[in-house]
Amino acid sequence: MQVQGLKNISLFQDAIQKELQKFSEKELPSSPEKLYGSIKYALTLGGKRTRPLAVLLGCDLFGGAVTNAMPAAITVELFHNFTLVHDDIMDAAPLRRNAATVHKKWNTNVAILGGDAMLVKAYQLLNTLNVKNKSEIIDVFNSVALKVCEGQQMDMDYETMNEVTIADYLLMIELKTAVLLAGSFKIGALIAGANSADADKMYEFGKQVGITFQLKDDILDVYGETNKFGKQKGGDIISNKKTFLLLKALELSKQNAVINRELHKWVNAIDFNEEEKVNAVVGIYNTLEVKKMAEEEMIKQYNRALEALNSIGADEEKKKQLSLFSNSLMNREV
Amino acid sequence: MQVQGLKNISLFQDAIQKELQKFSEKELPSSPEKLYGSIKYALTLGGKRTRPLAVLLGCDLFGGAVTNAMPAAITVELFHNFTLVHDDIMDAAPLRRNAATVHKKWNTNVAILGGDAMLVKAYQLLNTLNVKNKSEIIDVFNSVALKVCEGQQMDMDYETMNEVTIADYLLMIELKTAVLLAGSFKIGALIAGANSADADKMYEFGKQVGITFQLKDDILDVYGETNKFGKQKGGDIISNKKTFLLLKALELSKQNAVINRELHKWVNAIDFNEEEKVNAVVGIYNTLEVKKMAEEEMIKQYNRALEALNSIGADEEKKKQLSLFSNSLMNREV
Repeated sequence: MQVQGLKNISLFQDAIQKELQKFSEKELPSSPEKLYGSIKYALTLGGKRTRPLAVLLGCDLFGGAVTNAMPAAITVELFHNFTLVHDDIMDAAPLRRNAATVHKKWNTNVAILGGDAMLVKAYQLLNTLNVKNKSEIIDVFNSVALKVCEGQQMDMDYETMNEVTIADYLLMIELKTAVLLAGSFKIGALIAGANSADADKMYEFGKQVGITFQLKDDILDVYGETNKFGKQKGGDIISNKKTFLLLKALELSKQNAVINRELHKWVNAIDFNEEEKVNAVVGIYNTLEVKKMAEEEMIKQYNRALEALNSIGADEEKKKQLSLFSNSLMNREV
Repeated sequence: MQVQGLKNISLFQDAIQKELQKFSEKELPSSPEKLYGSIKYALTLGGKRTRPLAVLLGCDLFGGAVTNAMPAAITVELFHNFTLVHDDIMDAAPLRRNAATVHKKWNTNVAILGGDAMLVKAYQLLNTLNVKNKSEIIDVFNSVALKVCEGQQMDMDYETMNEVTIADYLLMIELKTAVLLAGSFKIGALIAGANSADADKMYEFGKQVGITFQLKDDILDVYGETNKFGKQKGGDIISNKKTFLLLKALELSKQNAVINRELHKWVNAIDFNEEEKVNAVVGIYNTLEVKKMAEEEMIKQYNRALEALNSIGADEEKKKQLSLFSNSLMNREV
């Protein structure tokens, strides 16, 4: 049964890849070269195509034909890539998935405008959906898109805020990361004609899976294998990114003056050896066992996701497929 | 009759202003403060609200109720302001309408993200339209939005291109500036239920008026009154912006070695006194009479606009109103 589930997922993934390829060839003309070239480039950088897969899985769960959902699947992938291109400018990130970011390969202006055009293309594609409730689906997409912007603003605000709580952090990742996955599942369900209660449950499921996904991201940045992940190992530590791990460590270290001083020393350090900082902070994380706590939080969110999924009245085999999918996100190594 | 026409326009303008105010109060929450604050700020900078007016005029011409068109009117104004916020980053412009640009008042990241959210809000509002042909209207908007991105890319490309022709320039301003006005008229017409041939004629009218509008902008930058216009006088000359005036002067000066040398000296100058450069280049423009040629081109485009307008079978009084509107754009002093 597990193999069955994963096999379906892999079929969907192949279909998404082909559709993205087709989109790139047919919908992105050669001129103006920088505008469309930067979009093509951003799309070839790959990634797991998790969000379009969520659209197809959401549609499939309610017996919809996944081909009907394909324009929406590509829409959410375009939207996701638009956010990556703009976020990479804001974070001054030189690399994404081991390749130069758009603003590094071209320049900031190309990345701003290429991102803008990618967002417009996303809307253009979404409007090709051939379903009666298209207007409702566009509403869901808009609401999600706006929340993602809010989450990104909060993420930037947190950089200079002194006191960020775990609750603040969970709200931020909900908006910045989780609602797009939530919306993807919901849109898929709506395309298949799911009723509004079930569509909302799919949203809830996706939201919890999305939070789990981001917590895993935080863990992998510190404890993952560098090459697989395609980012600098410990990059979050070097840049003092307020992840679950750091916030938890800051919270717990209040009980231990020595560790507290040591942690603040590294957070406030201006001139430092990067490897030394990463090793020292990982040492503190290990002492305080924050990885374990992040994993516990992840499992809590994951169980909530399963609860939402189980409350949906749909084919049990297909539900199994969704739980396999969410499980694979939580247990991924990259 | 003239007074009648302008009176209607002024009523529409008041309604737009009120609706924008309402939008700002109801649709832009207080948090995240930078995200929504920057949007509110961008919208208060004012401007002529030409594009929303075009939506209402287009709707009114075909007997539609302008209240039905109001969400689309605000949509195009939001879109226009989104492009201004992002373009100002790309152009590194410190001022717009005598006030600090968003990226100067906050920073580039706030301006990128605020612009993104403004675009999403534009789509959100457009989707509230309560008309049968909403999907077609969204298509028109998408197509226009994409062309505006293409035009902006061409504008940036031209900065470093050696040979830009007047034809290149006219295509660029068509995309960057004129199609949004064109689309605004067309969307208004479609909301009123105009047939597709008439809607296309409105597009054509708006496109030609838009080109006229931009040519006037080029002229005003050099020959307008500084304070009224709210931009640095001769800013285009200082930055070597490839306007109709400069391109025409470069073309004509090929016939006169002395002027050609002088013009290239100023275009290539790195250290220069700004006032001196503006005066020298204006002198060349005057000698070559490029202002007159720009005005001739403007009148040519304006006449084409009137031709498109006259070919529409609609109320003559209302058509008069539209020709007054386009005439006022051509003869404006700010």
